[in-house]
Amino acid sequence: MTTNRSRPAGRPATIPDVAREAGVSRSTASRALADYGSVSPDARERVRAAAEKLGYRPNLLARSMITGRTHTLGAIVADIQNPFFAGVTRGITDAARAAGYQVLLANTDEDVAAERAAVKMLRDKHVDGLIVAPAATTETGHLAAAHAAGCPVVLLDRQAPGLPADSVTVDNHGAAQDAVRRLLAAGHRRIALVSLLGSAPPADTGAERAAAATPLPTDPVSTGLERIEGYRAALREAGLSDTDTYLRTGTFHREDPADLTADLLALPEPPTAVFATDSMIALGVLSAARDHGLRVPDDLSLVTFDDTDWARAVRPRVSVVAQPVQELGARAVHSLITRIEGATRPPEHTVLDTEYIDRESIAPPPGA
Amino acid sequence: MTTNRSRPAGRPATIPDVAREAGVSRSTASRALADYGSVSPDARERVRAAAEKLGYRPNLLARSMITGRTHTLGAIVADIQNPFFAGVTRGITDAARAAGYQVLLANTDEDVAAERAAVKMLRDKHVDGLIVAPAATTETGHLAAAHAAGCPVVLLDRQAPGLPADSVTVDNHGAAQDAVRRLLAAGHRRIALVSLLGSAPPADTGAERAAAATPLPTDPVSTGLERIEGYRAALREAGLSDTDTYLRTGTFHREDPADLTADLLALPEPPTAVFATDSMIALGVLSAARDHGLRVPDDLSLVTFDDTDWARAVRPRVSVVAQPVQELGARAVHSLITRIEGATRPPEHTVLDTEYIDRESIAPPPGA
Repeated sequence: MTTNRSRPAGRPATIPDVAREAGVSRSTASRALADYGSVSPDARERVRAAAEKLGYRPNLLARSMITGRTHTLGAIVADIQNPFFAGVTRGITDAARAAGYQVLLANTDEDVAAERAAVKMLRDKHVDGLIVAPAATTETGHLAAAHAAGCPVVLLDRQAPGLPADSVTVDNHGAAQDAVRRLLAAGHRRIALVSLLGSAPPADTGAERAAAATPLPTDPVSTGLERIEGYRAALREAGLSDTDTYLRTGTFHREDPADLTADLLALPEPPTAVFATDSMIALGVLSAARDHGLRVPDDLSLVTFDDTDWARAVRPRVSVVAQPVQELGARAVHSLITRIEGATRPPEHTVLDTEYIDRESIAPPPGA
Repeated sequence: MTTNRSRPAGRPATIPDVAREAGVSRSTASRALADYGSVSPDARERVRAAAEKLGYRPNLLARSMITGRTHTLGAIVADIQNPFFAGVTRGITDAARAAGYQVLLANTDEDVAAERAAVKMLRDKHVDGLIVAPAATTETGHLAAAHAAGCPVVLLDRQAPGLPADSVTVDNHGAAQDAVRRLLAAGHRRIALVSLLGSAPPADTGAERAAAATPLPTDPVSTGLERIEGYRAALREAGLSDTDTYLRTGTFHREDPADLTADLLALPEPPTAVFATDSMIALGVLSAARDHGLRVPDDLSLVTFDDTDWARAVRPRVSVVAQPVQELGARAVHSLITRIEGATRPPEHTVLDTEYIDRESIAPPPGA
């Protein structure tokens, strides 16, 4: 065994190369590199130094066949341009790093086909498990398949009822109901909800159009639906039986929240307050209010889901339902790692609290 | 050869399994699955159907040894919570998808150690190349090593002078100079710059502290430095020789832009205008202005790099230097794919134009 036999230029170093360089057997080098079985500290150090000198890159696929793990998590978010998901992503990355895992991210832009492709790619890259904010509630066969094949899935932010997976969400219904109660308490009765909540447009039937002010998308995400139900519940408990007159929903990339708001403001009896279901919706509401020459909160009150940097910095500062974004990401990571390590308990649904932060965007209705 | 011999339950399907199911030879199945060489349309279709029936997942590592490609790009961004990088990420993902590539994302949170770990992870996952917004300008050995080992690197947003890689940036110097000229044209003379531009704090020597109002971080990112030089150039051409009195820089995660701005506003002769080097800085400036009871633009004018949704929605709407975020991402993808496909030309530095968008956040200085 020599330590100076050179390998052909350009060929990547292999375990035999490292073993030769370190002066140990192939099986010792293999055990030291994969970090399993018995290896003396001295041999381990020589192998480490040899691997570094030769620029050896482990064949992680082979290693994962030994250890069964790659210590890599896949995270699939629905829209990285939404500050909510950017914050959650940060929470996932921080918690994973602390637990010794790396994160591979994919962005679906609320598109189920892109989500399906991302799941395939991440499984091909041998991630140990997946954290997914699903783009659709019912089209989840690819997630069920991954889960059943031993690649555990944890749902984040959104539920998918047919999928027997852990989930980490907030109490969307309760938080929405609470936010709308704040508007009611300020004296508002004409309270609108604006939301985007699915990527498939509603079936365009005359019957449906007649039945609701705005038909729901065919496969809406659960988060949006729960916020709508919380909104309706708050209106009903205030004695307002007509809960859909000021309800405007659209599908991602098809409707603009500013346009939905403009429609509302053009009504003969326009709303005096708006509940926005996320911060990007809230920006649309603010734009539409500006375009109509309305001041917030004097002419139009606003409360929105999601606390963003801008909500604190602008004037008036915007009252929000703050979600624990870091904690959502961290809990999802912990659930997933427990599953990867073999937990077989039934699916757990973790529901975190939100916090209402009162600022300056709610006032009594004009003329009150 | 039988078509109904079953494999052990739970074992993943292999190429021999697919070949048996399809009734073709292993080498035909292998060629059909890897999409190379000569295979009859009929055999190709039978192999495809068999692979789908058996749930065959290609061993992409093995496949990549044949084709030399995984059609996966790695993208390493410095701070996914910055809307600039969220937008660029969207541009990367869209352009990659159009070119038949998938994207694996990693976020470094402006930390060089995290960047090093991300490069290692993505190379272990056999990406064909890397798009990187480097967290540091000089600590780039891991990028040089990847590049030299045949994993091409394209720099995005930021330069790294020692690295012979393609880069895609904007004209930061020119755009900053133009933005500051707008403030000068409105009559301002006390114009501040606020920036965060590195993860390493400055060496704390008395000499350095005495020499500048604010010492620069030890390894600042190029983008910030170029914007500072553009700022200084604009002041000098207006006859203002003292270009550092109102210059405040800090390091990521150590300094808060609102605190840097508060320091400026507490000066005996405070600035009447601020140039913020990105949208997150601008939010800090707005917060500090609020806390000092100053109105924008009446008491304090503001111009910032980066056009965000909130800059258009708030009142006053904020005047910005808009970067072509989608185009930056797309150009980086195209440069990288050209390299992956074997281009050997010298490094190319693509510099895209920015656009100044005049809104409502610049007014004459108070009392003017």
